[in-house]
Amino acid sequence: MSALAEAPPDTRHHASDPVEARHLIRSGAVTGTTAGLAPGYVQGNLAILPREYAADFQRFCAFNPKPCPLIGVSEPGSPHVPALGQDLDLRTDVPGYRVWRDGELVAEVADVTDYWRDDLVGFVLGCSYSFEEALTEDGIEIRHITLNRKVPMFETSIPTAPAGPFRGPMVVSMRPLKPADAIRAIQITSRFPAVHGAPVHIGKPELIGIKDVRKPDFGDPVPIGEDELPVFWACGVTPQAVIARARPSFCITHAPGSMLITDIRNTRMAIL
Amino acid sequence: MSALAEAPPDTRHHASDPVEARHLIRSGAVTGTTAGLAPGYVQGNLAILPREYAADFQRFCAFNPKPCPLIGVSEPGSPHVPALGQDLDLRTDVPGYRVWRDGELVAEVADVTDYWRDDLVGFVLGCSYSFEEALTEDGIEIRHITLNRKVPMFETSIPTAPAGPFRGPMVVSMRPLKPADAIRAIQITSRFPAVHGAPVHIGKPELIGIKDVRKPDFGDPVPIGEDELPVFWACGVTPQAVIARARPSFCITHAPGSMLITDIRNTRMAIL
Repeated sequence: MSALAEAPPDTRHHASDPVEARHLIRSGAVTGTTAGLAPGYVQGNLAILPREYAADFQRFCAFNPKPCPLIGVSEPGSPHVPALGQDLDLRTDVPGYRVWRDGELVAEVADVTDYWRDDLVGFVLGCSYSFEEALTEDGIEIRHITLNRKVPMFETSIPTAPAGPFRGPMVVSMRPLKPADAIRAIQITSRFPAVHGAPVHIGKPELIGIKDVRKPDFGDPVPIGEDELPVFWACGVTPQAVIARARPSFCITHAPGSMLITDIRNTRMAIL
Repeated sequence: MSALAEAPPDTRHHASDPVEARHLIRSGAVTGTTAGLAPGYVQGNLAILPREYAADFQRFCAFNPKPCPLIGVSEPGSPHVPALGQDLDLRTDVPGYRVWRDGELVAEVADVTDYWRDDLVGFVLGCSYSFEEALTEDGIEIRHITLNRKVPMFETSIPTAPAGPFRGPMVVSMRPLKPADAIRAIQITSRFPAVHGAPVHIGKPELIGIKDVRKPDFGDPVPIGEDELPVFWACGVTPQAVIARARPSFCITHAPGSMLITDIRNTRMAIL
């Protein structure tokens, strides 16, 4: 046995590659949030629904590409999405899952192999980690990351376009930015439509039904400077809220912050 | 003599083509503003300086591409800029010129043939007419156009990068927009760097030294709705103000609103 094997493995360090990161998650060596794992690679929101809901949900995503940018769909019954990773397994590769029956949370688990059914369809949606990386690499400060908090999220008065049982308000995330950074952030995120794209709103929270921008409905509050504007992006919590409202007979989602790591480089999500 | 020749010519109508528009201006049949002439074609700000100032001014434009997007330069002594129009003549093709000596306005004329010198260099800079057309065609209302007013312009606390005698604050133009339109306008104008490009500021006039956004330094005031943000673009008045401050021994500029019509289509100014 080597000296290396005797020390507790620094699994976070080894998880710089997406395949290795998924293997460490699959083995149980990595739990909790996937933030910071496999930097440079796309992480996805996950929603798994029975086939009877799949067409409506896929249509919902098509109608609402900003909150629901679909980057992968599994064949019914298959837990694999080869386009996102050759060995990727939707049953084991997310650190934390939530299992829902009739809209009620029934289990929080690290593996859904025992819940898998041959009529399930997995939907993977792009997430803001990708565009936040692009912003950070451009030198733009992201407040909740600086403060090591969750991004503040708000339910808005902006409706989504309904499809079948899926309907409800858009949820947005907010990042305070100086005006010149806000303009630059609009340019950068416009290049990434598959991970929420350009902001949906800027500067006047009350116009989209947000009563108090210091009191988010989800996530943590962050301070907004006098010299900053709140900038709002469509958020991947939207489909989760919409699914909860639709109360499907069965559903699996990722636990907050525990995303599906893919083999797709963030830069490959840029359309230009 | 034909019946057509007996009626006063509808010169505005005939000026839908840029070559024809320049010919009508050259002949004196069209005077005043060039707004609305040769729609779809780039119009330019004009600055004509003696050769001794040319290198510094060209460097100033290179340092400050947002207020001074250079789209054409003449050979010293030549009044032609073939890249912008084969028959274009800087001496006759602008409806109104201003002639300056030592920083003082000495003449306002419709033809500068008598002032032309063999050491003069003409600089043509992109103007906001091009991006305003792109915004209007996208369905975005531009307030000062709706109200048939001049765009409101403000001297700011944003410095330009100096070059030789050319230095001074950036002048910006302001257009009030609803937040979603502001985001769309940032996307659209980002595609047009040669006609001022993306805004330089949004939402908080006081941060760029504007004391009262209802009282522009140049142009006309326009109302800003409660549901709108003021959006600020670098303005072609910047180089005029900088030249006035530099007090060159001799200079010719276009009169406000009387631009140089080129053969370049506005869409060709889009980088993407």
